[in-house]
Amino acid sequence: MNYNHIFDQAIDRLHGEGRYRVFIDILRNKGAFPNARCFAGHNGPKPITVWCSNDYLAMGQHPKVVAAMEEALHDVGAGSGGTRNIGGNTHYHIELERELAELHGKEGALLFTSGYVSNDATLSTLGKLLPGCVIFSDELNHASMIAGIRNSGCEKRIWRHNDVAHLEELLAAEASDVPKLIAFESVYSMDGDVAPIHAICDLAEKYGALTYIDEVHAVGMYGKRGGGISERDEAAHRIDIIEGTLGKAFGVMGGYIAADTRIIDCIRSYAPGFIFTTSISPVLAAGVLASVKHLKQSSAERDGQQAAAAMLKAKFRDAGLPVMDSTTHIVPLMVGDPVRAKKISDILLAEYGVYVQPINFPTVPRGTERLRFTPGPSHTEVMMDELTTALVEIWERLELQLRVAA
Amino acid sequence: MNYNHIFDQAIDRLHGEGRYRVFIDILRNKGAFPNARCFAGHNGPKPITVWCSNDYLAMGQHPKVVAAMEEALHDVGAGSGGTRNIGGNTHYHIELERELAELHGKEGALLFTSGYVSNDATLSTLGKLLPGCVIFSDELNHASMIAGIRNSGCEKRIWRHNDVAHLEELLAAEASDVPKLIAFESVYSMDGDVAPIHAICDLAEKYGALTYIDEVHAVGMYGKRGGGISERDEAAHRIDIIEGTLGKAFGVMGGYIAADTRIIDCIRSYAPGFIFTTSISPVLAAGVLASVKHLKQSSAERDGQQAAAAMLKAKFRDAGLPVMDSTTHIVPLMVGDPVRAKKISDILLAEYGVYVQPINFPTVPRGTERLRFTPGPSHTEVMMDELTTALVEIWERLELQLRVAA
Ligand SMILES: Cc1ncc(COP(=O)(O)O)c(C=O)c1O
Ligand SMILES: Cc1ncc(COP(=O)(O)O)c(C=O)c1O
Repeated sequence: MNYNHIFDQAIDRLHGEGRYRVFIDILRNKGAFPNARCFAGHNGPKPITVWCSNDYLAMGQHPKVVAAMEEALHDVGAGSGGTRNIGGNTHYHIELERELAELHGKEGALLFTSGYVSNDATLSTLGKLLPGCVIFSDELNHASMIAGIRNSGCEKRIWRHNDVAHLEELLAAEASDVPKLIAFESVYSMDGDVAPIHAICDLAEKYGALTYIDEVHAVGMYGKRGGGISERDEAAHRIDIIEGTLGKAFGVMGGYIAADTRIIDCIRSYAPGFIFTTSISPVLAAGVLASVKHLKQSSAERDGQQAAAAMLKAKFRDAGLPVMDSTTHIVPLMVGDPVRAKKISDILLAEYGVYVQPINFPTVPRGTERLRFTPGPSHTEVMMDELTTALVEIWERLELQLRVAA
Repeated sequence: MNYNHIFDQAIDRLHGEGRYRVFIDILRNKGAFPNARCFAGHNGPKPITVWCSNDYLAMGQHPKVVAAMEEALHDVGAGSGGTRNIGGNTHYHIELERELAELHGKEGALLFTSGYVSNDATLSTLGKLLPGCVIFSDELNHASMIAGIRNSGCEKRIWRHNDVAHLEELLAAEASDVPKLIAFESVYSMDGDVAPIHAICDLAEKYGALTYIDEVHAVGMYGKRGGGISERDEAAHRIDIIEGTLGKAFGVMGGYIAADTRIIDCIRSYAPGFIFTTSISPVLAAGVLASVKHLKQSSAERDGQQAAAAMLKAKFRDAGLPVMDSTTHIVPLMVGDPVRAKKISDILLAEYGVYVQPINFPTVPRGTERLRFTPGPSHTEVMMDELTTALVEIWERLELQLRVAA
């Protein structure tokens, strides 16, 4: 067997399509977000501005979060030392689960090592516990949900993105005594659009389906207390399982679900991805606890981010740049080709000290490659003007189309 | 659909079998490991001694590790803010991967959010990249390897635990042009026995198979520099992929693989469980970096742990307690029944301030429920004597068999 040949071919395919990924080597400057240092050059670290972080509210650098982590580090040490069942359960984990349950108005919550694992473990286990379950999945669901659904072994029906008429068609086609689970996201992170939660819940009630929502790009950022779109739209009580991450707006790392006690207890007891792994570091749990608590009572970060996103979208639009429709904090610029998207990103970094990663397949469908900007409360108007000017210059240099302002 | 009924039944099954898990609420006292506080009682936290941590060498409380994490926390903040490809790659990640590659004498390494994810993501992706691959799996392999193998969609052959004759039989039954992957552990963590690595590699060479070893319970603990059993046995160069955790002997959290550049690049580029998730916090990466570096040049922790394990085994044996055969640092006491194992554990905690978790199905096969002790360099002989006396008392109280000393 010539294994090397097979592996080489796999890599060659990526080069051939222009989507071989090179990781950029950066260090963020604490307290000075979105500024960072890049190690790629030849003359030591050089300063850059980060435009593609998912630490949307810069909570990863918030003094309360840093202080809480420092305290936990000194109080209990670096790691948990075990699985939740065997030595790795600490008071921090329990308190954080209480806080997250309360945030979503649910009876319980359960921590995972990441949002990816929370989706994979929960969906695959739910599917196995419900005999003959059929899972209804939005076509743009995240890779981690797709993994969980696949690993559940259940039948799956894909509904066209945010298309409730299509969802209803598919639900109506199943017998009423078949267990059903509808899985979708609130904010779709690459396009920035939002699911019609109430309409989906109406169908779930009509057809007796459980509902599962991924609020990864919304927790901390929407709703009066950061409970996500389900809080903003007053729909949390209609959703059976709310899933979120601790690594984006909350600024740290980890994932979770919130649901009623019964469901939490089932996942806790049956999901291998929860049971057989070292629990998250108490240092992380302590940091998230501070972050969630802060964002429950402060809306300044959320407001600042929304304002920054609106401003950047307007500037892009006015300059004729192909900014995509987005009703949220996400600002995607369509390029439509992986090689060009990478080229623009490379020029921005090398010539303008601007870091924005090109987004290519499999993160988005082929032919919809884009640049995705995540302005936050710390990106200033001056930074935005510089960015817009840089993009227009590059667009012209590469002979790309600029829309003429209306 | 009555979903509540289905969920209730799932939980009732666990109660019925006496294996419903209750997490104990503890906080370790930094700098005073294995001492901790337990929150279960009614009168506030009470002091306990932890006997079941997988922070085997107490590195989670090592001053160098704590200092490194504190520095990173202040330098770059709490979280990475993105996936490795999109904003979440930092200099800490790159340095740590270099360090881990070097530890195992490999060209490259790749970080994951946990050891569980590293097994699941790597095995499932390898299986998908190698057309028609057959995976040969030791029957006692960890749940995370089983998940990865299942999710690969490959044919799988289970060989009897550590039985190379059986492995050869299964290998010989496949055509020579079929891609083959042998997956096994070095230290089996619930029994404490070790795989015959060289014999397995001989077969891999003979039958043209790739080799994958899980060194989760060995990295940091075996070999002159903590490279695991593959270092101790001078077999690392014969293994294609070495997998480890950052959450046990290294004391923090996370997982990794080490392999040649080609394989690392394939997993990096194709594994959804690597691509679509926030990278590990730079704070964790910095802590692990300090831990790995320290354990590369210090054997004091390893030696202390081996001495403690040998002493505890001897004390258990002399007292007639049913200590299982184990050639490693793990000290399992066979009970053989989930209800009794939990009972012993409950008495130890309530009456003796000793925390050791009962191990039940699905972590070990039914009928082999046990208590699993992990003495470390900080467990004193006095603690061991108290523990042994307590166990003998409980064994007699519950009318369990004590072996008469020879
Ligand atoms: C929609 C969605 N769900 C889940 C995840 C995974 O969350 P985490 O990064 O915490 O693993 C991501 C991104 O990483 C995501 O975009
Ligand atoms: C053999 C083995 N492999 C992998 C893992 C998973 O590692 P982690 O805890 O880092 O997820 C464990 C235990 O947790 C294990 O015992």
